[in-house]
Formats: sequence, structure tokens, C-alpha cells
Amino acid sequence: MNAQASAHDGVRARTIGPVRIVGSGLLGASIGLGLREIGVDVVLTDASPAALSLAIDYGAGRAATPDDAPQLIVVSVPPDVTAQVVADELVAFPDAVVTDVASVKGAVRAQLDALGADVSRYLGSHPMAGRERGGAIMARTDLFVGRPWVLCAEQATQADAQLLVESLALDLGATPVTMTTAEHDESVALVSHLPQVVASLLAARLTGNDDALRLTGQGLRDTSRLAASDPELWAQILSANADPVVAQLELLSNDLTAFIAALRNAEASGMKRQMAQFIAVGNRGVASIPGKHGSADRFSTITAIIDDTPGELARLLTDMGELGINIEDMRLEHSPGAQVGFVELAVLPAVAERASSDLLQRGWRLV
Amino acid sequence: MNAQASAHDGVRARTIGPVRIVGSGLLGASIGLGLREIGVDVVLTDASPAALSLAIDYGAGRAATPDDAPQLIVVSVPPDVTAQVVADELVAFPDAVVTDVASVKGAVRAQLDALGADVSRYLGSHPMAGRERGGAIMARTDLFVGRPWVLCAEQATQADAQLLVESLALDLGATPVTMTTAEHDESVALVSHLPQVVASLLAARLTGNDDALRLTGQGLRDTSRLAASDPELWAQILSANADPVVAQLELLSNDLTAFIAALRNAEASGMKRQMAQFIAVGNRGVASIPGKHGSADRFSTITAIIDDTPGELARLLTDMGELGINIEDMRLEHSPGAQVGFVELAVLPAVAERASSDLLQRGWRLV
Repeated sequence: MNAQASAHDGVRARTIGPVRIVGSGLLGASIGLGLREIGVDVVLTDASPAALSLAIDYGAGRAATPDDAPQLIVVSVPPDVTAQVVADELVAFPDAVVTDVASVKGAVRAQLDALGADVSRYLGSHPMAGRERGGAIMARTDLFVGRPWVLCAEQATQADAQLLVESLALDLGATPVTMTTAEHDESVALVSHLPQVVASLLAARLTGNDDALRLTGQGLRDTSRLAASDPELWAQILSANADPVVAQLELLSNDLTAFIAALRNAEASGMKRQMAQFIAVGNRGVASIPGKHGSADRFSTITAIIDDTPGELARLLTDMGELGINIEDMRLEHSPGAQVGFVELAVLPAVAERASSDLLQRGWRLV
Repeated sequence: MNAQASAHDGVRARTIGPVRIVGSGLLGASIGLGLREIGVDVVLTDASPAALSLAIDYGAGRAATPDDAPQLIVVSVPPDVTAQVVADELVAFPDAVVTDVASVKGAVRAQLDALGADVSRYLGSHPMAGRERGGAIMARTDLFVGRPWVLCAEQATQADAQLLVESLALDLGATPVTMTTAEHDESVALVSHLPQVVASLLAARLTGNDDALRLTGQGLRDTSRLAASDPELWAQILSANADPVVAQLELLSNDLTAFIAALRNAEASGMKRQMAQFIAVGNRGVASIPGKHGSADRFSTITAIIDDTPGELARLLTDMGELGINIEDMRLEHSPGAQVGFVELAVLPAVAERASSDLLQRGWRLV
């Protein structure tokens, strides 16, 4: 019942403590830290006494006592044991709402049904917090700020549960998004699991090609960046969402087969047009990704060349600030073998022309 | 013979004018502008009188006269007419070396052989300048600074030609890289054409999925970014390099088929291990991409949270500059629906710990 001012947005905590968090890894400890920061009482537990004591030392909450009567329990344990832990918590705390934060929801729900759990008090959720590695020591109060937090609310009887989990998400600075379990799993199959497999398979083709990689540009870097993800964890995530991911991969595989056939007969009638059509549909697909702040607006890009010295980038951005030009997005691109960098600055189209001429006037080199 | 101080690196121009540039689009006009900047005489020509006069007005060179006796001719016309133009120039200027800048080299060479051109004076090249769109109006003197510029030098008799093209690349600030034609085409099939197709086919799957795209994170944005490329141009580029690209796409297709089979039987013995192995090979592939300045060193990453207001990013980078910490790479990530951004700063591992504690001390929020 400690509702102090929130560090995130200046409002009081909506969540009423104690919140019981089962599993004190990165997500669990970050939720605990975030709630503690706004004065909510947090009870932590973990199968590993060492992990638990680390998270408590870290300030993510206190040890459980027999008298704790949590309204809300958050299960943040590895995906393969999530359902069993949720079922156990539902039994141990017959008045509490239980949520989990596993990145695949259908598999957890199916296992709960198989276990005969009281799912009227369970509401699966998934904070899109991005970071899949690291334990409590990587935890941060701000991990969820500005991220979507999916709530899988199927039944009207879950209104109370939904309110509790929504409050939790809001208190941690996240944006609640409500979907059915199936919608969630199909959505992440497309926007998270498909790109992961694509990046991994693309990057797997790069090994043993050091000569060719000398010609690497930003395009390959972008396309393969996700491939640095943890292999064991991702094998587990993909397995838990196998059907929707297989469906996406098969559609991609069909497109790839058709594209190869067109390219193999590139000089035959209509084949170049067919390839161009694939690429044009890709143009539309990438344009449909929401931009900053959830809008699908496109920005104008200004590219500046900067010397590779400390403070040079700051000087450019200070100039932008003095000129009153907000930077909507930015990327720093490096030139292999060179001591200069390219900075791509996305600005609102309305200010792009003035921004360019003002920057040129201040002596910046624009590409 | 105007060898003034170079704006790029303070040395004198190596290239001796006049250089004749055929085709005044983005690449041709940028080469002209870059050479003019260091005082080299540039003669421009273009099949389109309007495009030519625009490039001349822009300062990329002067109109040709009957008395011009260029040592070096640069052909920068669309890929499908490159070979014919190169052949014509070799005939018209029997003492000159001719190079081209098309992004696929084997097809041009095969067409030159078929045309019976004097290839002893031809040396194909490819500046990896990244930008595939835009005409003379997009031209910049700095387009090639720090970029690899591939020279396809097969024969010892081409030593003179190689010296001339290498000097051109160096004068424009590029890094010359020598390869055979086959090596070049196989290299760009892997590092440029394969990621283009992968990104386009991935992005093509996104259309009509606006609900799912609300959950988009940085991973999908990165993986699909290349998909914004020009469809007609890319259909032409891929067709001109069909064999090496088909070979890469088929290897990828085989991997994809194997991955789908493993995922479809994810619960069978050894299948999760097989998927994890694919992802682990991807880990190694992405780690083998050269980093900044051509090295494969990895950097430590610090992620800071900043408010979305003008000047906030500049303030962070000014602090980094004051702390004497060089930023090796940087990305700005946006939070859909939120008014904050995440800045990922790559720094040398040796300074990472100090950088984090110094930034925290200055009040920055780190993730």
C-alpha cells in the first residue's frame, strides 16, 4: 500500500503490494526494482537460493514470509517450467491473480489446461522488453519503459485480472496491448520469431568468407544483427511457438523458391518483372512498420560526415539542438578502413530543407 | 594537370586530367565533383542533354571538346548498357584506359568479350558507395570517402590501368580492394545481393498485418530495412549476377527447409539441438563481420534512456566527450507510444566500466 510518486511519469503507483515475483532473473528482478522504485512492496522467490539472495541484495524486493497475501503474482521463470509454476502458485494463493511473462503464450495456456489449473485467475502477459539474456545483475528499473506489454485476455470474467496486470504494466512505464493468446503467438511469430530465424540463417552463410566480408556495408550489418541471439533460449522459444512459426517460415520458403525460379530464368519473359514485384511488395511491407511513437509516418533523412574524434558527434547534435531541430531517429555508419563516420539523421519532412541548409552554413559536410 | 591540395586528406591529386566521365547520374556526377574539388579537369558526357547540362551546372565537370585526350574514362551508366558504352569508348579513345562502376562485373566482361572489345585497356571497378538511387542532384564530393572500391584486375598487362583506377579511388577518398571478377561477383552475391533478397522477402510477409506490427521491435526494423530498395534496379542487378546469387539463395533455401523440418518435429529427439546449432553458426557468422575500421573487434555496449526533446542526445554525447570516451558506434532506438528513446553506445571494452559509472554519476539513466 505504498503509493509514492513514480519516477517514470510523476503519478502514484496503481499497483497494490505486496506483489509476489517468482523467478528473479532479468525480467523478474527488473519488475521488482521498478515496483520498489515507486514504493510498492515486493516479495521475491526463486528456486535458486543464490539467485534469490543476489536479487534481494540488488534491491529488487524482500524474502517471502508465511503471512504474505499478494493480490498479484508474477511468474518469470524459464518458458519450459512456466506452466507448472503458474499452476502451483494458483493453488498456493487461492485469492491471487497470477500472470507470467513468457514470450510464447499458447503453449503455457495449453499446459495449464492439461494440469487442470484454475485459469479464471490466470492472465498470460508478455512484456516486449527485448533483452533475452542476463540475470538479476542486468536488471534495470527502466527495462519496460515505452515497450508494448501484451495482455492475453480471453474471457470477460478476467476483468479484475486484466486491471491488475494492466496497472502493473503502466506502473513500469510500459504500454499495455490486449490480444487473444492466438493473436499474440501469431503476431510474435511474424514480428519476432520469423526475423530471428531469417537473420540466423543469413548469418550462418557468412562463416568462412572473410575476403567477401571486407566489402560489407550497412545493409548486411542490419540484416544479420539479430543473429547474435542465444541459441539454446531461441531453440526453446521457437519450439514453444512451433505451429505459427512453421507457417511463417513455409510462406517465406515458398516465396524464396519462386524467387529462385524467376532469377534462374531471369532472361525469360516476365521474370525480371516478377522479381521486381517481390521487391515492390517488400517496399510496402517495410513502409507498414510503425515508426516512432507508433505512427507510420516517414521521416526525411539528412546524412552528415563526421571525423572520428570524441566530441564531434556531440558538436553536430548540439548544433541541431541550437537550430531547434528534433532528431526523430539516428544511425551512425562506419566506413571500413576510414577515420570518418556517416550520421544519418531522420527529421520531420517539414524541417528537412531548413535543417540541411542550416547545417551546411555551420560548416557540416552532408552526403 | 591541376594538382591542388586535396580536401580529403591534404595530399595532392594523383589523377591526371582530363578524366572523361560517361553518364552523369549520382555516381558519375559524384566522381566529377570529387575530382573537381581537388582541381582535376573533368569532361562530362551523357546520352541525355538535359542530364548533362544539369551535372555541368552542378559543377561536376565541363562539356567535351574534340581536342580532349583523356588518359582515363569512367563509364557510369545503367548496368544493362554498360558494356556497349565501354566498348564504344575503347574504340573512340584508343590510348585511354576505360573503367566502369557497375555493381556486377562478370556480365559486363562477358559482353565486352562478345563485342570483341580491346579489354587490355579495360579494368572493371565497383565503388561500394551504397546509394543506388538519385541523379546528379544527389551527387556529393564525399560519396566515396572511406568506402571500399573494388578493382577487378585479372591480368599482369593491366598494371597501368590498375594504377590509374587505384589513383582515382584514392583521390576520391575510397579504399581500393583488388579482386578477380569472379571473386567480386561471388562476394557481392553474399554480402549485398543475398541480404537484399532476404530483407525483401521478409518485408513482403509484413503487408496486411498492422495489428501484429504494433509489437515491432528493433530486431524486425533492422532485418527488414534494406527492403526499401528500388525494385526495377534490383531486378536488373540480380539478373546480371544470377548464377552466384542463385547459388547463395539455394544454400539458404536448403538451410531453411532443414530448419522447418526440425521445428516441425521440435519435440523429437535432437531437433532442438539441431535448431540451436543453426543459431550458433549464425552467432559465428555475425561475429565474423568486420567492425569499424576493418577490424573484427567487438565493443562493449552501454544503453542510456533519454527524453525525446531537442538537445537531450547532444547533452549525453557532450558528456561522453567531456569524459574523453570515444563512441565507436551508436544506435537510437525508439519506443512505440513513448516519449523516450534508448541510445546504444558502443565503446572500447577497456573504458566501458568507467564510462557507465561516470554517466550514472552525471545522472544518466542506463538500461
